[in-house]
Amino acid sequence: MAARRPTLIVTMGDPAGIGPEIVARAASHPAARRAARLLIAGDPEVMERAIARVRSRVRLRPIDPRTCDLREDAPGLPLIASSELGWRAIEPGHPTAASGMMAARAIETAAALAREGRVDGIVTAPLSKTALQAAGYPYPGHTEFLGALTGAPETKMLFVTRTFRILLATVHIALRRVPDALTIDGLVRTMEFAAAAMRNFRWGTNRSVAVLGLNPHAGEGGLFGDEEARVIAPAIERARARGIRAEGPYPADTFFAQHEGRRDLGAVVAMYHDQGLIPAKSDGIGGAANVTLGLPFVRSSVDHGTAFDRAWKGGARAPDPAGLETAIRVGADLATRGKRPLEWTWP
Amino acid sequence: MAARRPTLIVTMGDPAGIGPEIVARAASHPAARRAARLLIAGDPEVMERAIARVRSRVRLRPIDPRTCDLREDAPGLPLIASSELGWRAIEPGHPTAASGMMAARAIETAAALAREGRVDGIVTAPLSKTALQAAGYPYPGHTEFLGALTGAPETKMLFVTRTFRILLATVHIALRRVPDALTIDGLVRTMEFAAAAMRNFRWGTNRSVAVLGLNPHAGEGGLFGDEEARVIAPAIERARARGIRAEGPYPADTFFAQHEGRRDLGAVVAMYHDQGLIPAKSDGIGGAANVTLGLPFVRSSVDHGTAFDRAWKGGARAPDPAGLETAIRVGADLATRGKRPLEWTWP
Repeated sequence: MAARRPTLIVTMGDPAGIGPEIVARAASHPAARRAARLLIAGDPEVMERAIARVRSRVRLRPIDPRTCDLREDAPGLPLIASSELGWRAIEPGHPTAASGMMAARAIETAAALAREGRVDGIVTAPLSKTALQAAGYPYPGHTEFLGALTGAPETKMLFVTRTFRILLATVHIALRRVPDALTIDGLVRTMEFAAAAMRNFRWGTNRSVAVLGLNPHAGEGGLFGDEEARVIAPAIERARARGIRAEGPYPADTFFAQHEGRRDLGAVVAMYHDQGLIPAKSDGIGGAANVTLGLPFVRSSVDHGTAFDRAWKGGARAPDPAGLETAIRVGADLATRGKRPLEWTWP
Repeated sequence: MAARRPTLIVTMGDPAGIGPEIVARAASHPAARRAARLLIAGDPEVMERAIARVRSRVRLRPIDPRTCDLREDAPGLPLIASSELGWRAIEPGHPTAASGMMAARAIETAAALAREGRVDGIVTAPLSKTALQAAGYPYPGHTEFLGALTGAPETKMLFVTRTFRILLATVHIALRRVPDALTIDGLVRTMEFAAAAMRNFRWGTNRSVAVLGLNPHAGEGGLFGDEEARVIAPAIERARARGIRAEGPYPADTFFAQHEGRRDLGAVVAMYHDQGLIPAKSDGIGGAANVTLGLPFVRSSVDHGTAFDRAWKGGARAPDPAGLETAIRVGADLATRGKRPLEWTWP
């Protein structure tokens, strides 16, 4: 595609975790910088430390957030100082209120620039819910935080793997609560999000949305559970009546092997967290990016956590940036293809 | 391993499905015949038709079940006539009482020879629960049927993939029923089965049994469900007290990527059907074999169904025998390594 290179702002994540190091490594990588013009939102001193720790040769270039000048010919990796608490404010490897505050400020800075259209999307390194809440931010994670910052009425979690785009109908709830959390309305909304994503990101017109079953063998005709007949099949029917090429419910265990490589498949709707994330993560770290649907801008993220136990150890134990590199690549692709503004309503 | 080549009896499965054709193809394959001495339990006329349909050049050699003489130097593929209803008794592509009866007789014949020690294990092609029940056999599948034929007090389903051995704590029940079906006693029994399998099949002494969580992120410290704290962790503790190197509960979504290649890992215990089978089937058809633990003999099986819609079409649409070839390979390995008799009690 001969498209312009999008500008992505990358947040440093929780500075006590592996975020700053993987940001430093990924942003030093030629492939990531070919995919997008990168801008870091972080604490300058922490990011300097991270660059030294991973032995990168990249130099930070401070940017004025009011002008957000990203001239290509200027040397160095542009950084917007989202906080200036500095290295001494954190305890490496331990989430604290200060680390949560610094992570939150990076997200707020990035979201503000994305809302203003100064960047084409944001890519987030992992944060700690514990630290975020200690800092007074009552959000379980990025998705809810960004929803609140943008006033998005509803968001959906999408995983983009090498072969599939997987939306989750339910996310962070106990498995026991999943069957009753699945409603016809909620599943239709999830399918509408899938269809809107296809339109927003130009994934091809009129591709299918495949819906998985909840029970073993998708219930095997009602032998193991009735949610397929009572909720999932009616939701598929209703989505079809609204012009979405919905199909299923499919037995989840055989779906991914049987449908790999189908070019008419736009997205897959999984009923619950592990049903979608076991296949999404089957290619290992860097095999998938987590994308938030429902925001006015593109947001992609690593599919792993802060890994406090591996943070700031340096040397051979430097954390693997593959997840963040994938998030940058996927974010750049979505930002390049994406309509402006992203629209999440469905006729 | 310079071990003797085991003798496996392969059942033809439901003759209206793809069973006879995949048996004909797999049994003609040099690799399968190198792995084991194969003997077919089936209906002679149906198997002749299947061999012709898949254009195999193999010739059947009728065997007397009383002598079960498998002399290596005799030409042809030995077959024990488990039924003689013949081709006209079946409707290709449609499960009937007759097809169920013929499938059942093949299993009974194979199980009898395995119980008598005349073969080292049995490998089963897919059958139809509908047909089996129409024929008056009240079993939901092979596992329960073989359990009844052998008087096995308890069986467990194990999937052997290229990289993992995955046991299921619960199998064919609605997802809604899974949380309450998980008990400390039941999970300890599943871990004991895993440990007994390690001993029976000499998978290495004192390897770990990794136990998955039930909820997203294994409950994330109780935020999404309490079964990890209330049931799974206490079961792991109790198994450890009984000398089993049990570990977990692990978040299911990241487990398989993070633990691939661990040489000290003996088996994985999944809490429910799709949690174990999505990763087991991620390599596609032929990527895994289904093994029944708890029987006095080795039994492996394809990990797919009868595929009535693809049966007996012939030519380019001949069904893929990769699943049965994997089941033969895994069955041969287990039969070669396995102690005699298999013992499923735990001290």
